[in-house]
Amino acid sequence: MNRQELVNLIKERQSYLCVGLDTDLQKIPKHLLSHADPVFAFNKAIIDATKDLCVAYKINTAFYESMGIRGWESLQRTIEYIPSGIFTIADAKRGDIGNTSTQYAKTFFDTYNFDSVTVAPYMGRDSVEPFLQFPEKWAIMLGLTSNEGSRDFQLQQFGDEFLFEKVLKAGMQWGTPDNLMFVVGATQSSQLGYIRKLVPDHFFLVPGVGAQGGSLEEISRQAMNKDCGLLVNASRAIIYAGNGEDFAEEARKVAKQYQLEMASYLSQIAVGTL
Amino acid sequence: MNRQELVNLIKERQSYLCVGLDTDLQKIPKHLLSHADPVFAFNKAIIDATKDLCVAYKINTAFYESMGIRGWESLQRTIEYIPSGIFTIADAKRGDIGNTSTQYAKTFFDTYNFDSVTVAPYMGRDSVEPFLQFPEKWAIMLGLTSNEGSRDFQLQQFGDEFLFEKVLKAGMQWGTPDNLMFVVGATQSSQLGYIRKLVPDHFFLVPGVGAQGGSLEEISRQAMNKDCGLLVNASRAIIYAGNGEDFAEEARKVAKQYQLEMASYLSQIAVGTL
Repeated sequence: MNRQELVNLIKERQSYLCVGLDTDLQKIPKHLLSHADPVFAFNKAIIDATKDLCVAYKINTAFYESMGIRGWESLQRTIEYIPSGIFTIADAKRGDIGNTSTQYAKTFFDTYNFDSVTVAPYMGRDSVEPFLQFPEKWAIMLGLTSNEGSRDFQLQQFGDEFLFEKVLKAGMQWGTPDNLMFVVGATQSSQLGYIRKLVPDHFFLVPGVGAQGGSLEEISRQAMNKDCGLLVNASRAIIYAGNGEDFAEEARKVAKQYQLEMASYLSQIAVGTL
Repeated sequence: MNRQELVNLIKERQSYLCVGLDTDLQKIPKHLLSHADPVFAFNKAIIDATKDLCVAYKINTAFYESMGIRGWESLQRTIEYIPSGIFTIADAKRGDIGNTSTQYAKTFFDTYNFDSVTVAPYMGRDSVEPFLQFPEKWAIMLGLTSNEGSRDFQLQQFGDEFLFEKVLKAGMQWGTPDNLMFVVGATQSSQLGYIRKLVPDHFFLVPGVGAQGGSLEEISRQAMNKDCGLLVNASRAIIYAGNGEDFAEEARKVAKQYQLEMASYLSQIAVGTL
């Protein structure tokens, strides 16, 4: 999916919601465990219940990988089930020397046909560039993450700037707003406005709204740009909203709340009142 | 495998060679392509030909992941075929927030029974610690890598130290020489001696000898400690030494050269002449 298609999708749906499919066998409703592929059965119901409310699905590959080949089968069924026209993210945090990153890019862009993959920056330019060579595919590079450990390196100062600023600036030289997004953590919302000034045009994938506590209003106020420029992810807050037979309806209710709130911020930004 | 077992293995075999199974369908001998699982057929032959000369095998997961489920099947057959008592490394460069890193640790330690996995440090302490919770299993954290892109962030200065030094020092606080190793790149051999002073006890996984050009003598002189403390990896230089029916014999010849050279450095260090 290219940038204009993504921007159009956000406008049409009045949503910049990304639903995170961090599907964990331990946490899904018990009645699904009799299915041949309980993870896919869960994801299918969540997708059916939310596909008109979100613009993206994010698959956290770790939850699938940990189940071995069975998990990759669930992942493959899930990515194939997501309706075309919705943006897909492999949240895999890959990154290695050039020829190895090329293999990872092939994995997620060719083998599984995701629109994007999250990428770790520590190994530098030649570890990220292979992900930027595929037409209408995206790398989403870690900038500032929302976990406690972001203080260990990302928020350490290099002279007059933090490491994460150096990473964002480098990324802006390697990729463009058409093939590179950044992960910018929601629990650091005080810094979101500063980061938006530094990076005016690129999309941000903001994890951690909901269960992890970021405020959607604050994120939107600080970091929305004229094209929206945001994909805000909620995983547990949506997919585990309910735990009974009606889990998908419960998930839809929460997704709908987010979508309505997002529609409100999109119209406020359109008239300049956000 | 625990540290003492690894040290004993190195002494017994007079080797600290790690053979990297970066197996690529495009590069293996053509006559293998008729096998049901050509990647495993290749790996099996390489393992048979080198298993008495090396102390570790490193599987670069990207090459397997890019083939989808078929690739994971080849990976599983390969890890099961490696004789017990040889150290195994999943070169996967994972790292994410805590609950996701726990899923990655389960993937490689429980589901596939690797001894170790390579880990990316950018997300900090809570992204690395889940890999340190498994008895007799190891995290191998990126310190200084051998690629061009190591200059982008790792070799940037934070006040009076480079980022990679900060990463190594942090790692030493999070893990111990019994559950944490570091990736230290061979093409930076001028810095290996300095890094060994900074990190006296932990094992280093040194990639990039051979095809990538590091000198085994220089690496050994600079970075060996009293327990050896090194796993030196060669991938392409060994596994693609030949391209005909005799590829495994050719691989064995190169592995044997490395092993003999390593035996020489181990005896020199034992008598203090290295």
